Amino acid sequence: MGAVKWARLLRVAGLSGRKGYGIVDQPGALQSLSLGLTPCRLAAGLHATVPLHRAHQGGSRTRLVSRAGPTTLGILLLAAGLASALLHPSNPTFAEEPPAPNERPLIRLAEIQEHNREAGTFWVYRGDRVYDITDWVPNHPGGEVILRAVGGSIEPYWNIFTIHQNRDVYDILEQYFIGNIDPRDLVDGKAPARLVDDPFKSDPERDSSLMVRSSRPCNAETPASELGTFITPAEKFYVRNHLWVPDVGDAEDHRLTIELIDGEEVTYSVADLRKNFREYNITATLQCSGNRRAHMTAGSRPTNGLQWQIGAISTATWTGVRLRDVLAHAGVDLNEPDEDIKHAQFVGAEAYGASISFDKAIDRHGDVMLVYAMNGQALPRDHGYPLRVLVPGHVAARSVKWLNKVILSGDESTSQWQKRDYKCFGPNVASHNVNWDDAPAIQETPVQSAITGVRQVKGDRLRDSDLARVYGLEEESVVLEGYAFAGGGREIIRVDVSPDNGKTWWQAQLLPHDKDVHDDNQKAWAWKQWRLAVPTHALHEHFCVKAVDESYNSQPEQFDAFYNFRGNLANGWHRVPVSSRSKD
Amino acid sequence: MGAVKWARLLRVAGLSGRKGYGIVDQPGALQSLSLGLTPCRLAAGLHATVPLHRAHQGGSRTRLVSRAGPTTLGILLLAAGLASALLHPSNPTFAEEPPAPNERPLIRLAEIQEHNREAGTFWVYRGDRVYDITDWVPNHPGGEVILRAVGGSIEPYWNIFTIHQNRDVYDILEQYFIGNIDPRDLVDGKAPARLVDDPFKSDPERDSSLMVRSSRPCNAETPASELGTFITPAEKFYVRNHLWVPDVGDAEDHRLTIELIDGEEVTYSVADLRKNFREYNITATLQCSGNRRAHMTAGSRPTNGLQWQIGAISTATWTGVRLRDVLAHAGVDLNEPDEDIKHAQFVGAEAYGASISFDKAIDRHGDVMLVYAMNGQALPRDHGYPLRVLVPGHVAARSVKWLNKVILSGDESTSQWQKRDYKCFGPNVASHNVNWDDAPAIQETPVQSAITGVRQVKGDRLRDSDLARVYGLEEESVVLEGYAFAGGGREIIRVDVSPDNGKTWWQAQLLPHDKDVHDDNQKAWAWKQWRLAVPTHALHEHFCVKAVDESYNSQPEQFDAFYNFRGNLANGWHRVPVSSRSKD
Repeated sequence: MGAVKWARLLRVAGLSGRKGYGIVDQPGALQSLSLGLTPCRLAAGLHATVPLHRAHQGGSRTRLVSRAGPTTLGILLLAAGLASALLHPSNPTFAEEPPAPNERPLIRLAEIQEHNREAGTFWVYRGDRVYDITDWVPNHPGGEVILRAVGGSIEPYWNIFTIHQNRDVYDILEQYFIGNIDPRDLVDGKAPARLVDDPFKSDPERDSSLMVRSSRPCNAETPASELGTFITPAEKFYVRNHLWVPDVGDAEDHRLTIELIDGEEVTYSVADLRKNFREYNITATLQCSGNRRAHMTAGSRPTNGLQWQIGAISTATWTGVRLRDVLAHAGVDLNEPDEDIKHAQFVGAEAYGASISFDKAIDRHGDVMLVYAMNGQALPRDHGYPLRVLVPGHVAARSVKWLNKVILSGDESTSQWQKRDYKCFGPNVASHNVNWDDAPAIQETPVQSAITGVRQVKGDRLRDSDLARVYGLEEESVVLEGYAFAGGGREIIRVDVSPDNGKTWWQAQLLPHDKDVHDDNQKAWAWKQWRLAVPTHALHEHFCVKAVDESYNSQPEQFDAFYNFRGNLANGWHRVPVSSRSKD
Repeated sequence: MGAVKWARLLRVAGLSGRKGYGIVDQPGALQSLSLGLTPCRLAAGLHATVPLHRAHQGGSRTRLVSRAGPTTLGILLLAAGLASALLHPSNPTFAEEPPAPNERPLIRLAEIQEHNREAGTFWVYRGDRVYDITDWVPNHPGGEVILRAVGGSIEPYWNIFTIHQNRDVYDILEQYFIGNIDPRDLVDGKAPARLVDDPFKSDPERDSSLMVRSSRPCNAETPASELGTFITPAEKFYVRNHLWVPDVGDAEDHRLTIELIDGEEVTYSVADLRKNFREYNITATLQCSGNRRAHMTAGSRPTNGLQWQIGAISTATWTGVRLRDVLAHAGVDLNEPDEDIKHAQFVGAEAYGASISFDKAIDRHGDVMLVYAMNGQALPRDHGYPLRVLVPGHVAARSVKWLNKVILSGDESTSQWQKRDYKCFGPNVASHNVNWDDAPAIQETPVQSAITGVRQVKGDRLRDSDLARVYGLEEESVVLEGYAFAGGGREIIRVDVSPDNGKTWWQAQLLPHDKDVHDDNQKAWAWKQWRLAVPTHALHEHFCVKAVDESYNSQPEQFDAFYNFRGNLANGWHRVPVSSRSKD
């Protein structure tokens, strides 16, 4: 295999230092899966590096409480066996040049379909060209999700993971070319559309009031009219899917595997979790790191990603068991844990992955949960049925849905969503000059607040209302409502509202709902809702809101100085034109 | 005793609701001591309220590991016995009207001196008038510090605690009038100055480079030239004293009392602590909540308090034992602590008091320490010799010096410094309309940063310098240096510097010093120092700096929207005129 090919392969695998891919950021499109390896690994010596996230760990004693699926195990063993050979430059697995098409046989579609994820060899096609990617699977930077495509067309997946639409990736694929589809199976030179798998075909129905930002995968925000309730109804809870909604079958049979630091695995069914551990209810707000991204775009410059308004945030009561209790049962010493454990990685059934610090995972006051119910009902499929993680106080991207696996590790998750997407950089950094390793993955989020409603109240109506009693206002007024939230369990202690674009400030009333749902010993995992009435004569130009948390951090006035090209954590003061008020 | 007198007494004791005293805020002057009771207590019924902070707790079993001083115990018993009687309106202890001077005897100074803190009765004088305040001592809102004055003149203390210079306080004192000083002991109608105690007479000498903001008590900041080293030398460490520096005698004999939730007391000498507990070294930054208050004043409006520039912050390596280990030894169950314990109160030998949450006090990763050494030497007297608390990540006001006592309680400290001084309110709140209970005591602090040095480097010098190698700059440049720090152990992840008043931003280099002093499992308790070289042609108007911590919180652009009348937590972007650069 030539040097040029190797340079390409390394670049694709994210191993070529700063020249890694920028992100293809069409709103609604998805970015690449895990890159598998960080650039800094290169210096440590390629020969020791295996892209699959687990293979660097020691020998794997496997203790199955329940029986683990054979597919996963098989692939991992395959990975360990093939990886070092594949990564050695002199290895003959790679052809020096793709053969000319006419040197290869014609292949029937039915034969391709046999080389699926249940088989020992994996074929895919693109256009009318067929590839045996068996040897590539363990090296795929995105991990096992590639198995979704085998036995069929790779194209629907590359239309989602648009990073593949790139010459370097095409070149890699060509190395595995084995022949063309038999023309008898083609219609207009292509495989029939009915045979092309639709990854989203089993996605659930959604509530029609959700504001859809992308449909495949589904990303839809809660409308402002539904943000005024402390608990968001499950069907109104914003949906943030990175991929399709996996169909995991019966809830009680779903299995969670805990992989300990020595490679040992312990497996629990959801029924095991329910039966063997104390159940907790935690009311917590989840917020997408892109909430209010549209405001950063409007207030500063274009940003990459879904253009959320104020509704990529919702609150629910989550029921489940504590991760720390399950880890203790699986053999982790919570009082004197192994010092090699730094992170808890989570892997979802659809291939999504992320991690949090091990300290947070086992913190007595961290309330990290394995959740099977939401607002008193089984988890809806869009929110992780039958099992998800809840990491309160952290960006929602860490609360992995459709949870298959927890891996205790010295390293954080190598996924795209840990290593790239969910980070912020300085205003001067752009996608073409970013060094992704310069910023840590977003975990706890900064202070945030928004105005969700502005109503004008006539003086004559006001006199008889609750507001008159609360505020003592008898003149024509405007009532503003909204939410405020901070990460890390830091309580919102004050919400300042300006009726004149920041010249003067009033303190909003913090509504006491959250007192019903948590005791004094629990951190503030849920948003605060607030309300303020201001007489009409005080209004000028824009309403603004900013909140303050218990560490006395607050929000930036503008977006320019905190602009980041990914548009994450857009928490500049929320400004709403005074003219936007509706009559009551 | 008449209704008017009672109204006055309640007002003085801080019991009259919103009409409590505003703070007398001459820079350099001190505010009142503890108010002893919060307004909300009034509603709970005066009859059950005893101002001394411990008397509300249950029976006090006292288990002395070492022997406690008899004075403290005696006063507390006295307090318990007298309190309910004194607070009952019909109690005859209070004279309805002060008697005319000529009805009372003349008293020799020598006799007054006999009624000192060792005696069972306590006398003071003011001018030539003598008062027996024995009955008032247990009710003194400021606590036992009043005993400093007994046997002598009250005036030097009232010159410090200026809240006493008030008609209501004079009226209370007059109720205890017992006679006039014998004219034979007066010089020009007053007691000789040599007999008037100077509370600061035993204060230590200080380094002449410290920038003094008030001398009695000593408040002095570290000069910018000394803020460039990661560890601040002890003699350059900023000094923030609320009162005098107590002279506690031999270090090894100094005793710390732990008061448990049931009133039981356990006492340790410093020697006990050294001998019986594992020693730790923690490198941590301490910052006064008033650091950069002068910038808020200059950037917005006048603020109350010492007008610190950027030097009310320093970093040291602190040696001592963990508070959690000592509490465990004293009988606290760290795994299943008594749910009534919410706070750990700290009492200093000079009467200062403050508290932190019990969770922080026992957090395995909280690193709250009982400290007896600083930078490898015994604690200097200005920094708490022989024993202080270190509460890393919290405002320095909680790291109580000259520690006498730790009280585990359901309530936070009732001191002035917990209930009033160290809080922030909205920009619209002023001293005349503040409700002190509306804001929580400052504990963890927000993100902060400052520029400590600006040097111009000529192109010809630059070519041979480290900076040329680091930055690749060969043209005439400016090198900026500074610090950045966030509370809560949240690491500084980025420092943005603008050479043109916020139009464009550069990322400063974060210097790696802190990697030498803490391991991965420890939170970021120390500041980050940073450096940036900018070519001269990029400069325009003002340099600005803002830092970002790991929760992606940052600093406000201006001071106006975050103005608070106490001038606390002034963390607006630090701006320095471009013209301020010095030639190198």
